Amino acid sequence: MSGPAVPTRSAHTEHRPLPLEEAAPTGGLWHRWQEVNRTVSLPLARQWLERAGNLDNLRLAAGEAEGRYRGPVYMDSDVYKVLESAAWELRHVDGADDRQGPDGLRDFLDRTTALLDRAQQDDGYLDSHYQVAQPGGRYTRLVDSHELYCAGHLVQAAVAAHRTTGDTGLLTVARRAADHLADVFLDDEGPGLDGHPEAETALVELYRVTGEGRYLALASALVERRGRGLVGRHKHGARHRQDHLPVREAPAVTGHAVRGLYLEAGVVDVAVETDDAALLAASAHRWQDMVATRTSLTGGLGSRQVGEVFGERYELPPDLSYNETCASAASIQWSWRLLLATGESRYAELIERTLYNAFAAARSADGRTYYKGNPLQRRPDHAEAVGDPRCRDEWFFSACCPPAVTRLVGSLEHYAVTTSEQAGAPTLHLHQYAPLTLSGPFAGGRVGLRIETEYPWRGRVEVTVTEAPAGPWALALRVPPWSTRTRWDTPDEKGVEVTADEQGRAVLHRAWRPGDTVVLHLDLTPRLTLPHPRIDALRGCAAVERGPLVYCFEQTDQEDGAAVDDLALPPDAVFEEVAHDDLDGIGPTVTLRTWAAVVTGAHEAGLPYRTLGSAAAADTDRPVTATAVPYFQWDNRGDGAMRVWTPLLGG
Amino acid sequence: MSGPAVPTRSAHTEHRPLPLEEAAPTGGLWHRWQEVNRTVSLPLARQWLERAGNLDNLRLAAGEAEGRYRGPVYMDSDVYKVLESAAWELRHVDGADDRQGPDGLRDFLDRTTALLDRAQQDDGYLDSHYQVAQPGGRYTRLVDSHELYCAGHLVQAAVAAHRTTGDTGLLTVARRAADHLADVFLDDEGPGLDGHPEAETALVELYRVTGEGRYLALASALVERRGRGLVGRHKHGARHRQDHLPVREAPAVTGHAVRGLYLEAGVVDVAVETDDAALLAASAHRWQDMVATRTSLTGGLGSRQVGEVFGERYELPPDLSYNETCASAASIQWSWRLLLATGESRYAELIERTLYNAFAAARSADGRTYYKGNPLQRRPDHAEAVGDPRCRDEWFFSACCPPAVTRLVGSLEHYAVTTSEQAGAPTLHLHQYAPLTLSGPFAGGRVGLRIETEYPWRGRVEVTVTEAPAGPWALALRVPPWSTRTRWDTPDEKGVEVTADEQGRAVLHRAWRPGDTVVLHLDLTPRLTLPHPRIDALRGCAAVERGPLVYCFEQTDQEDGAAVDDLALPPDAVFEEVAHDDLDGIGPTVTLRTWAAVVTGAHEAGLPYRTLGSAAAADTDRPVTATAVPYFQWDNRGDGAMRVWTPLLGG
Repeated sequence: MSGPAVPTRSAHTEHRPLPLEEAAPTGGLWHRWQEVNRTVSLPLARQWLERAGNLDNLRLAAGEAEGRYRGPVYMDSDVYKVLESAAWELRHVDGADDRQGPDGLRDFLDRTTALLDRAQQDDGYLDSHYQVAQPGGRYTRLVDSHELYCAGHLVQAAVAAHRTTGDTGLLTVARRAADHLADVFLDDEGPGLDGHPEAETALVELYRVTGEGRYLALASALVERRGRGLVGRHKHGARHRQDHLPVREAPAVTGHAVRGLYLEAGVVDVAVETDDAALLAASAHRWQDMVATRTSLTGGLGSRQVGEVFGERYELPPDLSYNETCASAASIQWSWRLLLATGESRYAELIERTLYNAFAAARSADGRTYYKGNPLQRRPDHAEAVGDPRCRDEWFFSACCPPAVTRLVGSLEHYAVTTSEQAGAPTLHLHQYAPLTLSGPFAGGRVGLRIETEYPWRGRVEVTVTEAPAGPWALALRVPPWSTRTRWDTPDEKGVEVTADEQGRAVLHRAWRPGDTVVLHLDLTPRLTLPHPRIDALRGCAAVERGPLVYCFEQTDQEDGAAVDDLALPPDAVFEEVAHDDLDGIGPTVTLRTWAAVVTGAHEAGLPYRTLGSAAAADTDRPVTATAVPYFQWDNRGDGAMRVWTPLLGG
Repeated sequence: MSGPAVPTRSAHTEHRPLPLEEAAPTGGLWHRWQEVNRTVSLPLARQWLERAGNLDNLRLAAGEAEGRYRGPVYMDSDVYKVLESAAWELRHVDGADDRQGPDGLRDFLDRTTALLDRAQQDDGYLDSHYQVAQPGGRYTRLVDSHELYCAGHLVQAAVAAHRTTGDTGLLTVARRAADHLADVFLDDEGPGLDGHPEAETALVELYRVTGEGRYLALASALVERRGRGLVGRHKHGARHRQDHLPVREAPAVTGHAVRGLYLEAGVVDVAVETDDAALLAASAHRWQDMVATRTSLTGGLGSRQVGEVFGERYELPPDLSYNETCASAASIQWSWRLLLATGESRYAELIERTLYNAFAAARSADGRTYYKGNPLQRRPDHAEAVGDPRCRDEWFFSACCPPAVTRLVGSLEHYAVTTSEQAGAPTLHLHQYAPLTLSGPFAGGRVGLRIETEYPWRGRVEVTVTEAPAGPWALALRVPPWSTRTRWDTPDEKGVEVTADEQGRAVLHRAWRPGDTVVLHLDLTPRLTLPHPRIDALRGCAAVERGPLVYCFEQTDQEDGAAVDDLALPPDAVFEEVAHDDLDGIGPTVTLRTWAAVVTGAHEAGLPYRTLGSAAAADTDRPVTATAVPYFQWDNRGDGAMRVWTPLLGG
């Protein structure tokens, strides 16, 4: 069983995914998230696919219903993303359990596959909007039509279903669609380029599954044609659609964040499958620039609400950043591909930061509701303002985000481990830490690991080798840069200070036997984090972090009515860590308590500006215990103010 | 000759406009702005009314042309606003000069009036969009149709033309339109409320000119019906259209800023004409809250780009605030009405701040191009980002802002002076300082003033009484709060420290004779201004101000290639004032030079965040002379970075 993005044998990558024969989260957050995925989110998503009309649109296309097309042009993509989610989650349920009736994931997958098969046109075209609402309009408005985008998600769903079940039903539909795309778009004189990338990475994945070179050729063509004005005119300009510069030349990510990130995943996929080092380097360069200048502390991307775009360099307003949920998922997909291509730990770092913060915050703890935008601050009067809603919702007119969450959560375990073979030393790399068992072919044999940990709540990670190939191999454990004093116990010595290599990894090369155990002790001491001085919107503030988790202050946790917006943190804050088995129903957590100051100024009636040197309104200042919770758990207990970045006392 | 907003004799106001028999700026900025208005902006606006289709739309409505309606539904309003501008500017040209041909303002006014007369329907309805593009659709979609909004601007143009020329041609068209509105909307069962206020204040003005009580009654009804869900559904909700709470109850401005501000002007107009103290107090309360929590240092309003709305309390991002040009003009109109109603200086303060900063910055020095949004910061890479353009343009698809500038500039002198009669002491109040001559009936006689000054470049304001009524009266000169050491020379003593009254006014009550002179010496010492601690986006920064002018650092003025974004100001900055007769073609100015630090950090490749206590990237820090220019003159000399709020060294 493989996960998302599995390069072919001939691909040029430093790392490869471990083809998992078995893998399952056995507890902790990942397990919780997947359980909620299956029991709450997916049933709800399937209800919404009926309620919002997505499935009816396909029934109309199949000639099996009457009525009008409903929703935006890309309604089919939501169906595909839910299908993909179901495909991944099928691995986590007992087959028998899931066959208990029409609510089963298997049944949903089979019935929807059959519907798609009936809806698909003879030439392979499948897009309910154009078939139902605009017959004859196909490929006439690619800048906004999302036709290749939808086809891409169909392909990704089919690839997932094939990888998890071996079934070929959905794959057959997807191949017909892809063959049709190749017929139409491989021609240089074809109709142009989709305004929303996604087909690029999907077609490479389909090539990986089927070996059909035309899919790779088409993906490559779509990538190379970008930046030449072929997308068509858009009110926000070519830059918004990443059509202003060829991908080999563009120095930085720009435009609509989700579009840009999906495109980059495809760029890396094409680069590794075609051994194109220059193409890979261009994408990696943009990733580095994006991380250094356009990424929220939570990993959120797309800092400007207007146009849902990447902002200017260092434009990272905590209150106004859009940080779309789909962008968080897409960022993880891009970083995963770069991690495979280069083997560099920094990509695993960003995956972890994004996963536990911007991404995980999108869904409510109960799995029912979602944020599309994920700001780092909510003001006390947010409910009285006009603009983006500052609360989660079950579904949306443009419902891209909920199934972006469910499909990533469903495949989480695949992002934990990779293998490399450099210099004749087979190495198993553990990038993410979660309670997990896994096994797969490795180093000419078969490897099995059992990971036991309460991470990210505690820093202890116990890795037990349950199966081992013959001969020596290396186990590499990623040591995050925030872990300043890291120790480990190996089969050979205990309590040793870890010396990480230049990739930030603790590596132990030896012959392993089943039962051998390594215990990594990561240092989760809470820390204050400062922003780069160029980030104007964060000047004078600090954020609280603990391990991979960004923390925030929510109004509900503050004592004595201290307003979150009045809090100021001492630079020498010492945090008391308080573990909860279940905090008000949101599950296990660790809250952080510290002394802080509540600074309240007399609010003047005039302008909120004063001359330096003039008398300031009298500030009163009282000590208080302030309590922070993990950002990803925010807004599960009331709609009050929240802030990640908090003024530093005297800052 | 009267200006905008002239309460009736029976209105309850503390102040009244001085009915000007003569008034003209004689030099300085106001004169320059009006000259540019007449010679560049209005000719260009008239070209655009042809090019964009506004006049053709009316010709279509009159049955005199063939083709299709062009532009958004409110195209007529641009015609009316240009007409109003022409009407005000007619006062500034020699009649003979202006009759020289078809380019004359008079000719434009007459010919357009005739066109409107022909386009108007028999029942008084006049709206080219609905007449041409949607016959039969009138009043069916008031939430977005702008029908009353357009009619309001027709009325305001007619009132202006009548006040400046005495002509009744346009007034006749406007009255027919208003009579029609009264027939349709005075009925409580009428079609609803316009989504864009404007008719309210216009109808009160028409009542003032004509004495027709139905216009006041309709204005009052429109004001009172607001907040009861009569506007209709809108994607941003009732709050966006100020339809969520009755105007007597709403505690704060909210929603679309321009809409909200136009509504408030109408609320005050109705309140003073109907002697409704509670209604007035509700509006004044919202003004005070808006100033204290939602106003940029420049006076700009509407801090959120999405929806062009007032933001949350203290949401005042310098880079992202929209600060629409129309909102600046509308704010001045509201404050002017509150100044008349209450006589309080704070309204004149905000008028001055807005006029010289947010409003004046909207138009380029040459009068050709305009900003719609007026942020306080532009980043060096703005041209590479997607979103709101960060440069001025001649005209816009939604072209509300250019004629909002021309109509206010055309009537500037009317905002300078008011009269009051409290306690039997007739007082002439000078609120704004510009080279100006004016005369009008006052205190049973006639008063004339000649104001000579180089304000805002210099603090010396010489006021000469050129005509004086018999008997004693008071001259009240506003002393802005930033003038910390203010002296004056009166006919009775020289160089006296001014003791301002509780309204911040220097008042001299005496018998005046022609030739009597008062010289006010305002203190323009440059100062550093700090933001309220609740404004997260400005923490750790200061702004430079001098007199009424907010300053900014533009890239083009910095020496040694110092990047604006690297500047940091010392808290004890001392500014050298450098006067220029004409700085690179933008006219007279005073620039400010100070020692500052250029702080450049090594830009790391990783995330732009670091743990407190960890080694920061090495900052280098070198002294440099930084040069600031008045914000209103920015972006006339290149498209580089600009910032008003600049980090304080050690801040």
